[in-house]
Amino acid sequence: MPKQPKTLDELFHDTLKDIYFAEKKILATLPKMAKAADSGELQDAFAKHRQQTERHVERLEKVFSIIGKKPQGKTCKAIVGITEEGAEIMEEYEGSPALDAGLLAAAQAVEHYEISRYGTLRTWAEELGLDDAVPLLEATLKEEKATDQTLTEIAESVVNQEAEAA
Amino acid sequence: MPKQPKTLDELFHDTLKDIYFAEKKILATLPKMAKAADSGELQDAFAKHRQQTERHVERLEKVFSIIGKKPQGKTCKAIVGITEEGAEIMEEYEGSPALDAGLLAAAQAVEHYEISRYGTLRTWAEELGLDDAVPLLEATLKEEKATDQTLTEIAESVVNQEAEAA
Repeated sequence: MPKQPKTLDELFHDTLKDIYFAEKKILATLPKMAKAADSGELQDAFAKHRQQTERHVERLEKVFSIIGKKPQGKTCKAIVGITEEGAEIMEEYEGSPALDAGLLAAAQAVEHYEISRYGTLRTWAEELGLDDAVPLLEATLKEEKATDQTLTEIAESVVNQEAEAA
Repeated sequence: MPKQPKTLDELFHDTLKDIYFAEKKILATLPKMAKAADSGELQDAFAKHRQQTERHVERLEKVFSIIGKKPQGKTCKAIVGITEEGAEIMEEYEGSPALDAGLLAAAQAVEHYEISRYGTLRTWAEELGLDDAVPLLEATLKEEKATDQTLTEIAESVVNQEAEAA
């Protein structure tokens, strides 16, 4: 018997589970990154982003509710790989003047993964007529983009400070 | 004996090896995605991006040369995870009207990973005074952003077509 073709609403649900897993993983990872960071500015940025991430999880739970599903994660190999690279940086660059630059790069890789996923989910939510889900996904997308921008600004200033201290 | 702290130029070199591995992985993956795609527009976009990716590899080889190193990859767990998710989509959504939407989402996750890495490398190249490397990294960054934009446009049109056909 041929398998039943999966539809866009199933793809939306699968991808929602993927990013839900990813947000939870990020929630667990950000305190470690904040603790590892040298600069107070970066520590603060990670702490602030953790608070934002809690809201992102809540918004996702609302989207699950909108499509009549229970909030549930599904292992997201992408975020596992991205955060493993971040963990390697924390280990290999511990005590190094380049540590914060590496942490920033790891955090920006995370942000960009999320930007791609929320952009995709928002497009699909529009097409599926999930009118209540669109502004929730849009709000998080905007915050992820703003966080990426903040991290870029910190990256430029952190690297400058290191160059001056060298 | 305490380990020698690693410096920004080592972080630059490590990250160059990471994205070199990623670009080679993408080169191997794009033909599979083009073959899997239903829409001719998406097949063409993947084929065109493969040609671009060959140039991205060449540019990275020039950057290795600028820092006096041999081009060499280092397993990038992030791109391994991202492409494994793409492979799952190809398998789970084969024969489904939502396949192309899923392939587009997978490709955009790849693009965003690259955008984050090239943005980071360009910032570091500026700080390290690698003046010949900056325009090479900048050129690829612009092309990755343009590809992401193209994929967004195709995603909107593909999803619309599916909605109309349903």
